[in-house]
Amino acid sequence: MAAKNNENKPVETPVENGEVQQEAEDVVTPWNVSTGSAKGVDYKKLIVRFGCRELNEDIVSRIERLTNKPAHPMLRRGLFFAHRDISMILDRFEQKKPFFLYTGRGPSSGSLHLGHLIPFIFTKYLQETFDVPLIVQMTDDEKFLWKDLKADEVKKMARENMKDIISVGFDSSKTFIFTDMEYMCPPFYENILKIWKVVTNNQARAIFGFCGEDSMGKAAFPAIEAAPCFSSSFPQIFNGKKEIPCLIPCAIDQDPYFRMSRDAAPRLKYPKPAMIYSTFLPALQGAQTKMAASDANSCIYISDTPKQIKNKINKYAFSGGQATVEDHRKFGGNCDIDISFQFLKYFLESDEELAEIKQKYSSGEMLTGELKQKAISVVTAVIEDLQVRRKAVTDATVTEFSTPRALAYTY
Amino acid sequence: MAAKNNENKPVETPVENGEVQQEAEDVVTPWNVSTGSAKGVDYKKLIVRFGCRELNEDIVSRIERLTNKPAHPMLRRGLFFAHRDISMILDRFEQKKPFFLYTGRGPSSGSLHLGHLIPFIFTKYLQETFDVPLIVQMTDDEKFLWKDLKADEVKKMARENMKDIISVGFDSSKTFIFTDMEYMCPPFYENILKIWKVVTNNQARAIFGFCGEDSMGKAAFPAIEAAPCFSSSFPQIFNGKKEIPCLIPCAIDQDPYFRMSRDAAPRLKYPKPAMIYSTFLPALQGAQTKMAASDANSCIYISDTPKQIKNKINKYAFSGGQATVEDHRKFGGNCDIDISFQFLKYFLESDEELAEIKQKYSSGEMLTGELKQKAISVVTAVIEDLQVRRKAVTDATVTEFSTPRALAYTY
Repeated sequence: MAAKNNENKPVETPVENGEVQQEAEDVVTPWNVSTGSAKGVDYKKLIVRFGCRELNEDIVSRIERLTNKPAHPMLRRGLFFAHRDISMILDRFEQKKPFFLYTGRGPSSGSLHLGHLIPFIFTKYLQETFDVPLIVQMTDDEKFLWKDLKADEVKKMARENMKDIISVGFDSSKTFIFTDMEYMCPPFYENILKIWKVVTNNQARAIFGFCGEDSMGKAAFPAIEAAPCFSSSFPQIFNGKKEIPCLIPCAIDQDPYFRMSRDAAPRLKYPKPAMIYSTFLPALQGAQTKMAASDANSCIYISDTPKQIKNKINKYAFSGGQATVEDHRKFGGNCDIDISFQFLKYFLESDEELAEIKQKYSSGEMLTGELKQKAISVVTAVIEDLQVRRKAVTDATVTEFSTPRALAYTY
Repeated sequence: MAAKNNENKPVETPVENGEVQQEAEDVVTPWNVSTGSAKGVDYKKLIVRFGCRELNEDIVSRIERLTNKPAHPMLRRGLFFAHRDISMILDRFEQKKPFFLYTGRGPSSGSLHLGHLIPFIFTKYLQETFDVPLIVQMTDDEKFLWKDLKADEVKKMARENMKDIISVGFDSSKTFIFTDMEYMCPPFYENILKIWKVVTNNQARAIFGFCGEDSMGKAAFPAIEAAPCFSSSFPQIFNGKKEIPCLIPCAIDQDPYFRMSRDAAPRLKYPKPAMIYSTFLPALQGAQTKMAASDANSCIYISDTPKQIKNKINKYAFSGGQATVEDHRKFGGNCDIDISFQFLKYFLESDEELAEIKQKYSSGEMLTGELKQKAISVVTAVIEDLQVRRKAVTDATVTEFSTPRALAYTY
């Protein structure tokens, strides 16, 4: 891979070859996340490497002030930890100017897992709080290009994943969920063309690390994930308006796509998209990797039964506890590397209860079995809640969400 | 440009870097045609270099036998001179199995010129003779990506070019003309994806000569010209059938696209497209280049008046005559390099008359002024004929041809 860095138009950061190496350990790309540290990726370093901004307490306070309610736990606890240009979006909210939310999913498994839910749960909070349209892109084309799967197979997965996403509780009057292979249409394609035209092959290589043996499709795809950043891709929603910016809630591994989008935007005379980035929900085995749908034992699917959840957490969830009860009582457990505690950080509502658990587990008062018990109960409640809604989601519901149409907003 | 040759899947021929060099002289790519020879490109050598087949007299005779009528003059005179797999198409015709015609145009000027007409005039003959559906792709996206033009500008040119093409005399009940930017839709996109998936960046570089400084769009585009080779791109015409092959009449500079399409086809379980290739109508100044719409003095636009045609041929058409009347009478003219004679080869109906002119001009009996007079009268008749039909072509006619719909065939 002899990718030269982009000579003509510098990208926002000097990240090269798609892979951000941290002390030869942390790898964070749209296709791979791994680190040697049991505490997970070093996110502070990642912010510096990617050239995005820390989402600090000032911003969280401003969001609380503007929205008149407490910030979402994932925001309060720094699990959405980085951003680009979020102040621009908050300014618009304050000035009552429109913006929209854009997020997505690459359908590579039949059922979502707990990690996939993070951006969607958070997006639901954003949509309810800011009352703006939401656009969800299912990149079935990406999975078709990257995986050894047929078009019909990825389409089927996309449909199942859409049902899972709808089950998070989105309001169909404010939400458009589409698959690239079904939505592809002239306004969307025209934006893809415009992005294609202003990014060179060298730049794409520098950002994504593509090489000569990769397919033409992989090299072409980034513009397809970038195009929904621009409101003119959805004339049915935005009446052809080109100047409405978006806020993208997603995991930070998607930053290369949106860095490219931000570089392209001014050349297209479009507003730059803003982003709010989450950490990765760790695999059950530990924070060295994120949950992966391809490894059933690394993750909790949203289709898992209470018994499966219980077994997986009890059997696989990496423990920060000591080897013996005696040692644990004496030295205490390590919440930073304990996966059950990490799950509680994401999903336990009460800050007080979380602090209490942390104190008790760290001091050795709470044993690993008890902590796992708590994690099982919290995660099971989240999943069961979703499963109830999932039962009500039919093919007709998917059609309702995915039909190109106006949403309940006037622009 | 350090494009390695395709290691995994050999293309049909060893052509490299998109440019076919003949003795360091002839250049034939989709973007550039030039030669040092006043007789034009050495087509016999080009056939060998591209790895396609000569369209010999046996094939012309077979076409006449199968269709019960004389072959088109451009076929009889070797102006359509090369092919890939045309026997497969003729076999199907003999067996009454369906096929379709596919050709296209990149709209880079407001008006077509005489050279652009060649494939369309010949396609009209093929459609009338074989009575099959015709699909015409306007690659407005290609011109948008390659030229310093805005989307609206190429769209406008495409519309004007469509009117010119329709004026050749196609039957709307059997012809679908579309622009990529208007037609882009799920079945078309799915075939683009399938082609993207089976061609590597290295292969595309080897075929087309793209380099790192080229835009992502240029690298992505070849699949968009390839996708209409496959009948499933047009479910409204072929009822979703995937196995109907096409015959592509076009100039030979488009061969890289269709070589790639033929390489991809078996991996997509689609039939390979067949091609029938024309030579290039020479520029007025001589056969070292083809007519170029960007140089008004090199070409005759189909919007030119009789006076303009007369002036252009009289003033610019390169003459194979001698320097003085005395020398001309003594040594005779050279038809091989005389542009007026080349025009007659393309557009004069009668073989006998053409032979007579050749004999008279070569012997010195006919002077350059008389030959030019004949060329002016023949070319003017072709253009005036077209202009009459062009006047009847309205925006509604374009809509009629470009609306996705069933054609007058049952599959």
